[in-house]
Amino acid sequence: MKKTTIIEKDSIQLENPVLIEGLPGLGMVGRIAVRYLIKKLKAKPFAHLYSPHFPYYVIVNKRGNVRLLRGTFYYWRNPENRDLIFFTGDSQAQTIEGQYEIATKITDYAKRKGVNLIVTLGGYRKEVEGTPRVYVASTSEKLLEKALKSECIRSPSGNPIVGIAGILLGIARFKGIKALCLLGETRGYMPDPKAAKSVLNALCKILELKVDLSGLDAEIERAEKLLEKMHEIEAKRESYVRQLREEERERTSYIS
Amino acid sequence: MKKTTIIEKDSIQLENPVLIEGLPGLGMVGRIAVRYLIKKLKAKPFAHLYSPHFPYYVIVNKRGNVRLLRGTFYYWRNPENRDLIFFTGDSQAQTIEGQYEIATKITDYAKRKGVNLIVTLGGYRKEVEGTPRVYVASTSEKLLEKALKSECIRSPSGNPIVGIAGILLGIARFKGIKALCLLGETRGYMPDPKAAKSVLNALCKILELKVDLSGLDAEIERAEKLLEKMHEIEAKRESYVRQLREEERERTSYIS
Amino acid sequence: MKKTTIIEKDSIQLENPVLIEGLPGLGMVGRIAVRYLIKKLKAKPFAHLYSPHFPYYVIVNKRGNVRLLRGTFYYWRNPENRDLIFFTGDSQAQTIEGQYEIATKITDYAKRKGVNLIVTLGGYRKEVEGTPRVYVASTSEKLLEKALKSECIRSPSGNPIVGIAGILLGIARFKGIKALCLLGETRGYMPDPKAAKSVLNALCKILELKVDLSGLDAEIERAEKLLEKMHEIEAKRESYVRQLREEERERTSYIS
Amino acid sequence: MKKTTIIEKDSIQLENPVLIEGLPGLGMVGRIAVRYLIKKLKAKPFAHLYSPHFPYYVIVNKRGNVRLLRGTFYYWRNPENRDLIFFTGDSQAQTIEGQYEIATKITDYAKRKGVNLIVTLGGYRKEVEGTPRVYVASTSEKLLEKALKSECIRSPSGNPIVGIAGILLGIARFKGIKALCLLGETRGYMPDPKAAKSVLNALCKILELKVDLSGLDAEIERAEKLLEKMHEIEAKRESYVRQLREEERERTSYIS
Repeated sequence: MKKTTIIEKDSIQLENPVLIEGLPGLGMVGRIAVRYLIKKLKAKPFAHLYSPHFPYYVIVNKRGNVRLLRGTFYYWRNPENRDLIFFTGDSQAQTIEGQYEIATKITDYAKRKGVNLIVTLGGYRKEVEGTPRVYVASTSEKLLEKALKSECIRSPSGNPIVGIAGILLGIARFKGIKALCLLGETRGYMPDPKAAKSVLNALCKILELKVDLSGLDAEIERAEKLLEKMHEIEAKRESYVRQLREEERERTSYIS
Repeated sequence: MKKTTIIEKDSIQLENPVLIEGLPGLGMVGRIAVRYLIKKLKAKPFAHLYSPHFPYYVIVNKRGNVRLLRGTFYYWRNPENRDLIFFTGDSQAQTIEGQYEIATKITDYAKRKGVNLIVTLGGYRKEVEGTPRVYVASTSEKLLEKALKSECIRSPSGNPIVGIAGILLGIARFKGIKALCLLGETRGYMPDPKAAKSVLNALCKILELKVDLSGLDAEIERAEKLLEKMHEIEAKRESYVRQLREEERERTSYIS
Repeated sequence: MKKTTIIEKDSIQLENPVLIEGLPGLGMVGRIAVRYLIKKLKAKPFAHLYSPHFPYYVIVNKRGNVRLLRGTFYYWRNPENRDLIFFTGDSQAQTIEGQYEIATKITDYAKRKGVNLIVTLGGYRKEVEGTPRVYVASTSEKLLEKALKSECIRSPSGNPIVGIAGILLGIARFKGIKALCLLGETRGYMPDPKAAKSVLNALCKILELKVDLSGLDAEIERAEKLLEKMHEIEAKRESYVRQLREEERERTSYIS
Repeated sequence: MKKTTIIEKDSIQLENPVLIEGLPGLGMVGRIAVRYLIKKLKAKPFAHLYSPHFPYYVIVNKRGNVRLLRGTFYYWRNPENRDLIFFTGDSQAQTIEGQYEIATKITDYAKRKGVNLIVTLGGYRKEVEGTPRVYVASTSEKLLEKALKSECIRSPSGNPIVGIAGILLGIARFKGIKALCLLGETRGYMPDPKAAKSVLNALCKILELKVDLSGLDAEIERAEKLLEKMHEIEAKRESYVRQLREEERERTSYIS
């Protein structure tokens, strides 16, 4: 395998589909969001993307089986509205050229599948308080307006959108496909299902999609308990270090 | 997009044009200079350069729209003398091969547009006092002489010219196009419109171009005030640190 | 040489051969194991693999002769069972793309030689006590079962297998060849013949191969003596440093 | 320029020529040696090698002219023996693939010019005392014997020869050209004409070449004076630092 390659398992036909991307990234927001939709909507895998720009290891699954890192395309036939294609996977590219190559490959394939709208999901680094807000950027004025009406905030001017969530927008515009990026506020150092829920809320409004998101609440609770625990450990560690320093200071004064 | 690509929006014909390059670099000198000329002369964009060797992010504009990083070619029809093409953009290449690939692409395209002279603008790291001087290097003895008569200084022997401003000269010579490089003295750690003005002064003399450069003066003043402020902050910080150290020393002596 | 290249010296025909790979890696486990088999079975070299992704130096041999870094394929005609191909060499690839390129080249070549099973050998980082255990992962449920019956442990889920031992499995699966990976527990910071023996024990059971492994015992003893010596030196160094610190502390107290 | 390219200025025919390479490297030994021969024998340039794997800057010459980094081939018609081709230049490749690409290009070109022997010159890191010795490695037993008779030492087994001096040997062997590497002992942190002279002495004996090497003596003297001066400065600096520390220690004792 010398180039990024897409292998189609199932040659499906879709109705005016939208592609929704969520690869691992800041706070795993995009990946958590897309995987939730895949599970909830029982979307089906139909194609894999392999690339020599992914990290050079394989992952072992529960049964001891292994496979190359890859991305997977899933489809969901929407009885009420446009069909959906999801794209998620194990990793982003490890090189600049790889980022461009993979984004180009995804966009070309999406175009062949009749996609004329790509939505990328990700995280936006911020000290969040309360419900994470969602930032939006788009190649289309109309889409942007729609997102702003769905309680999204305009992504600040001059702000870079790093990695696949950004590059995919740039390449899509370059190839004449409309594209939208939704970024949920997250501290980013732990998987953040709360940010993912905010992003999905916005996505559902914009695409007029009805999906029950309450299934994320258990995950959010788990993440918050974990975070609390980490804070406790950190607080204990700090108090211990402070105590040590004080003892040291007393000892030093005494000696002198 | 697997290779650096130029997309022409407007297939213009120019009279014996000169290409003037100024991408981001030391003190942003080249970029400030070229952007000033584009604005002042109302030059018009006619082609974009995209490359997988640019950084892998996109930038959001004021309206929330995004695009890939790119370079842009502008043209200006000179009623009195040779036409001008300007090239500026968001970034230089991030890899060695990228630097060569982009410089080759620019030079080939310039040749096709009838360019037989390329001028690159940039910064030259130096502790400047007073008006920044301009260093010159060239692939042509004649051009060099002309620049020296326009108050430029010969770039010191053995001195490397790093990045696009240098590589473009080398590739141009390789392809039989004359090329000249003008580097303005700058400390380089902040955008430096003063260095840009010096460079433009020299450029106008060499190309016998009449452009009012006074529009840069407001920008220069702003930059100098900002610098003063930074120096004040730095001085305060230092005096504060000094004071802390003295208190600490006294306290230590006292304890002992 | 612009691409990874295999040069066949001897165009041999083999009976349903298995390819066994062991390149340098963690604790040199794979390489020690494969080299032992080559020596013990008197396997013969028949092809070399060269690559611009190997490090850019050459190695001098005992007679002052030099050659490029390379991998070598050996064959052994098994009078009782399937023939064997061994692959070992000087180095793994130095780049991500190189890892994929070399693994693809090996797999394609193996396929042409009639190989339908690839076994990769390597190390598994762990604080070992007693006999190192062997972890297994595979692209085939049946092979995995056979390995588990041969006292191997299922490689933990989510565990990455880094480098050629892993990538080769991924690529093999991608190309429709069965593959198995055996990793021996090792601390990994020194060549570890003991881990190699564990791996070979498992390999022989799985492939129903009879090879006398006692020849590794001398090497194991040497490695253990060396390790003991290093521990002694380290203990001395630590005790010396402790002593210095105590002297320093006394001196300081005295001064104050 | 997307690939390493050789541009021939003068299509010369040579008699059974030997290629002698000396690019910048450890102690600049190879480059100093080859440049000395070029100057002394009045060898003439006939081809340039350009590569996108060289560093991305250009160098300004005394007159303010610039050019891309490159390598240059020179020839010398030997009235008494085999003709010589010299190869030297500004830099080695900056990437692994570049090292292989450039070595392949040089070897292919040399073959086309009728070369069946390549000699690479370089440095060997060592704390030298007295006259630097010369280490030899070769792809040919016969050449090696000849070098050993010319007072060279066999390069230690297992020793890597890094960079172009090594890779060129490996590629040459791969392409069926004999090759020899001569490495002069050098501390390596400064240009070392003394090591270069040792290497040239050996080279002249092996190739039965008569060249007056006394022209290097002035350069050697200059280098030794410079070294002495640097040692003096270093000694002063150290004594000054020692004094400062003592003062500090006294002051501290006093305070406490």
